[in-house]
Amino acid sequence: MMAFSDRIEAALGLAIARCRTPAAPRRLASALDYAVLPGGARIRPTILLGVAAACGEDRLEIGDAAATALEFIHCGSLVHDDLPCFDDADTRRGKPSVHVAYSQPLAVLTGDSLIILAFEQLARVAEIDPVRSARLVMTLAQHTGMPGGICAGQGWESEAEIDLDAYHNAKTAALFVAATQMGAIAGGQEPGPWAELGARIGAAFQIADDLRDTLYDAETLGKPVGQDDLNGRPNAVASLGVAGAVSKLKDSLSGAIASIPSCPGEAMLAQMVQRYAEKLAPVTPAAAPAPARRTVPGE
Amino acid sequence: MMAFSDRIEAALGLAIARCRTPAAPRRLASALDYAVLPGGARIRPTILLGVAAACGEDRLEIGDAAATALEFIHCGSLVHDDLPCFDDADTRRGKPSVHVAYSQPLAVLTGDSLIILAFEQLARVAEIDPVRSARLVMTLAQHTGMPGGICAGQGWESEAEIDLDAYHNAKTAALFVAATQMGAIAGGQEPGPWAELGARIGAAFQIADDLRDTLYDAETLGKPVGQDDLNGRPNAVASLGVAGAVSKLKDSLSGAIASIPSCPGEAMLAQMVQRYAEKLAPVTPAAAPAPARRTVPGE
Repeated sequence: MMAFSDRIEAALGLAIARCRTPAAPRRLASALDYAVLPGGARIRPTILLGVAAACGEDRLEIGDAAATALEFIHCGSLVHDDLPCFDDADTRRGKPSVHVAYSQPLAVLTGDSLIILAFEQLARVAEIDPVRSARLVMTLAQHTGMPGGICAGQGWESEAEIDLDAYHNAKTAALFVAATQMGAIAGGQEPGPWAELGARIGAAFQIADDLRDTLYDAETLGKPVGQDDLNGRPNAVASLGVAGAVSKLKDSLSGAIASIPSCPGEAMLAQMVQRYAEKLAPVTPAAAPAPARRTVPGE
Repeated sequence: MMAFSDRIEAALGLAIARCRTPAAPRRLASALDYAVLPGGARIRPTILLGVAAACGEDRLEIGDAAATALEFIHCGSLVHDDLPCFDDADTRRGKPSVHVAYSQPLAVLTGDSLIILAFEQLARVAEIDPVRSARLVMTLAQHTGMPGGICAGQGWESEAEIDLDAYHNAKTAALFVAATQMGAIAGGQEPGPWAELGARIGAAFQIADDLRDTLYDAETLGKPVGQDDLNGRPNAVASLGVAGAVSKLKDSLSGAIASIPSCPGEAMLAQMVQRYAEKLAPVTPAAAPAPARRTVPGE
């Protein structure tokens, strides 16, 4: 059986390669490649494939398409978030961000193209199972757009008063809920019972990100640090302190494992979440004061 | 039977209203409304519904969803095209463009949200017919993204050398081909034979737009004029002259009518294209030198 990471990279690479046709503008095609490959930790598509496998998936192509679609949405959102009018981030994954390497127009178009390409991947598997294909489109759209997806989350940053629950649910948790629910759909199961797992992983991830933003340096992260502070965004470390945030992170992760619905691969999935927990929580209260210089999952 | 325009406005209004939930950020929800309502001429969704009706559509909800999806993509692309890094257009449809009225971040998010909302509309009708739903997703994606959709068209403007055919096919014709093909799919027919009609209407529309860009003033158009010239974009009037462009426009439209595939509503559709032809070609060579001050279909 191919490892999840091999399946993800193969599917992403194939979908990106299809954009390089003689009739396609070369720089935009190149920018798509640059935005997606090589990638970060591929956390969301890995969770998606983990859930699909745990559900006993019968058609790997559907999981591959769903994982690719989800990662395209994530990569596209990073390209747009890095734009000067949002975070104005010059680096991402240790290299110049897309608008710096290509241009702002190409960065806008790269994000747009990745969003569209995501839905195209899902439509491709309709010949295998049109019902699963359509449910994947609906689930991805609802966790990506308005009123409750990552666009809505980013939109909260333009409000005078932020609804913090709505903000975190939409900005970060939404794509993790999409990951678990799309994994269930790809695996032929009902998505409803899988929402809690995604939400809990998403909450843990948000806290871990807040910790990294506070504690690491830019070289280790491959992107600018202190951005929450600079941009006046809410941050769990600011409200709970480092020890409080680490404690909440651990609670979220044990809650995540407890919430896994009963399924053929339940034990495998619990192990997988546990491994992520260890990667996500590298900071203990004792180690916190010194900026740790170790590899952390990049985004 | 409801008029096409009533069906389109009702479906657009309903989809936009669904984005105004208590958990949604209000300014972004308001910007979506602002970008879509009131609209321009709704040419693409009207063509789509015309083709669906001509094909003998049996489920109006599918046509409504397809028309809404296509118009959302069009409106989203206008919001992004107007951004300072592209056309830097301050006005659109006679009012401030979205980034002027709201902000650049909200304009980026409005475009992103409209793209996503488009695909969500198509997923909604999967409960009626999952196969048609998936084909609509595929067709819309292929005419919107990379390598051959409107993103690709816009991407050509960042190339050192432009492939003019690829540029016009992607930038303008693509959404008209999407209109005719999605209409056919919504009407339960094969989309293939409908590509030529869309391509010919798209070519005519491009020439008409070039004529308007050259000949009208900003007040009449509700958006800045002379943009092609300013942005160094190819323009049919520059290469053919006014008389040559008008002649090519007429040829495209008569070719469009001749290309209509045989179907139950063939005569009705031919009449509809003829009416568009009359709206699109208000400029005769004799009238050309004086800027005509009449209402033209806005975008």
